[in-house]
Amino acid sequence: MEITAQHRLHGGTLGYYRHPSDSCRCDMNFTVFTPPQAENRPVPAVYWLSGLTCTEDNFTTKAGAYGVAAELGLMVVAADTSPRGPDRDGNDVPDDDAYDLGQGAGFYLDATQPPWNAYFNMYSYITRELPVLIAANFAANPAKRAIMGHSMGGHGALTIWLKNPDLFTSASAVAPICAPMQCAWGEKAFTAYLGGDRTAWANYDATALMNAGGDGSGRAEILVNQGLADNFLADQLHPHLLEDACATVDQKLSLRRHDGYDHSYFFIATVIGDHLRHHAKVLAG
Amino acid sequence: MEITAQHRLHGGTLGYYRHPSDSCRCDMNFTVFTPPQAENRPVPAVYWLSGLTCTEDNFTTKAGAYGVAAELGLMVVAADTSPRGPDRDGNDVPDDDAYDLGQGAGFYLDATQPPWNAYFNMYSYITRELPVLIAANFAANPAKRAIMGHSMGGHGALTIWLKNPDLFTSASAVAPICAPMQCAWGEKAFTAYLGGDRTAWANYDATALMNAGGDGSGRAEILVNQGLADNFLADQLHPHLLEDACATVDQKLSLRRHDGYDHSYFFIATVIGDHLRHHAKVLAG
Repeated sequence: MEITAQHRLHGGTLGYYRHPSDSCRCDMNFTVFTPPQAENRPVPAVYWLSGLTCTEDNFTTKAGAYGVAAELGLMVVAADTSPRGPDRDGNDVPDDDAYDLGQGAGFYLDATQPPWNAYFNMYSYITRELPVLIAANFAANPAKRAIMGHSMGGHGALTIWLKNPDLFTSASAVAPICAPMQCAWGEKAFTAYLGGDRTAWANYDATALMNAGGDGSGRAEILVNQGLADNFLADQLHPHLLEDACATVDQKLSLRRHDGYDHSYFFIATVIGDHLRHHAKVLAG
Repeated sequence: MEITAQHRLHGGTLGYYRHPSDSCRCDMNFTVFTPPQAENRPVPAVYWLSGLTCTEDNFTTKAGAYGVAAELGLMVVAADTSPRGPDRDGNDVPDDDAYDLGQGAGFYLDATQPPWNAYFNMYSYITRELPVLIAANFAANPAKRAIMGHSMGGHGALTIWLKNPDLFTSASAVAPICAPMQCAWGEKAFTAYLGGDRTAWANYDATALMNAGGDGSGRAEILVNQGLADNFLADQLHPHLLEDACATVDQKLSLRRHDGYDHSYFFIATVIGDHLRHHAKVLAG
């Protein structure tokens, strides 16, 4: 693991890291904010998953999250959204000209279809590779993990939390894609990465997983914030489907709708403090 | 004046604006954060001036300032750092290949030397044109203005405040260029924009203006934050010269030095809340 940049901020430290990834067969980048409290004891870690077109840098520079994280004593790990660049053999990682497929659009799944399946294994990367790396290199408490994300990353956070209760205790999302099987972004990506058989898709759809999951009453409340002036709300995000599924299986959900807010990082910056406070409270429980 | 983008955030509104500038003879861009309190009454306005290479967007997206501004009821105006793009006749605004001269490097002065003098009049733009535009179009209280900035923008904020006591009541700076006549950035820019006669330079040098200003005891305390791991501290910034000048003329200065902090927006994000609180307090007085 290589440190590519390091900055002091809010009494803690922000690092940019690069490491060779087995899951993605290329170098992957991420950032970690380590709060001042980590000097004395391992701290809870909140993982952030970004949306389409982002790298680990968008959240890191634009979300304004680290002041609150420093107050609460939370580590924040921000991941990239896909493999990219040259692979371990010097060949190019596959890509697509569209913004919603290929690099920048990993959808936090393990692809089964060529050419993607050799590299696009973001599900394994986030659930198996990155937590091990964090545990080995940072003062993170392995019993206290939360996961959150925006848009495509909200889909990633919800599905990964649903399938990995021992790994992530708490989940939240800003303007998540709640039912990718029922929107154009998800249908396009899942067809490319997982093939035409929709039964394989349900394994990466938060609404489908929730409906299939049985009794959710034992798990922490999910926090979702959604802007009502979000251009993608009607066609791509479908929070009402997640809401219905949570009601069906008795999963607690706080779905907060906000008049006038859009899909941008300015909305993320507005609600990120609430998300961190939610996770701090759940992880303290 | 044209609105190029608008976002809701932190209960207020952020707008990106473009307007034809008389001072700079081209279209100029700026952003305004209007806090929720402005719905009921005109609010104090804090102007932000950015450093080399920046546009109005760097501060707007990276500083994480608007949550605190919303709490305090402060409007925040972020300006571009120079003229750029086509001029009003469709010709290109002059530029230089170096990052520290020409577009992105206006140094908040009125140039006297060709080719710059036809466009590079950022001093007039910030002191005469922009405040009039803000007064005409936003719920800003014209008796309550503060100015702050980073690096080259800190130089701009300090010099403009020193020369315009009736316009700006309060001033602060993050890692400012405190004595441009005594550093390479300033010498290069002043030579190009103002010519070789150094007597003309003193009019745009915070330390020289402070030393020449006589009794400063009647004006508000200046707040300066400076990181001690800032790569530019030793050669370009010289806060000790400003400190000496303030002591000489009895100007109150709170110069806070911070171990381990660098010149980046992560340092700005760490201290921006303190700057806004400083201005709110001075402007309430």
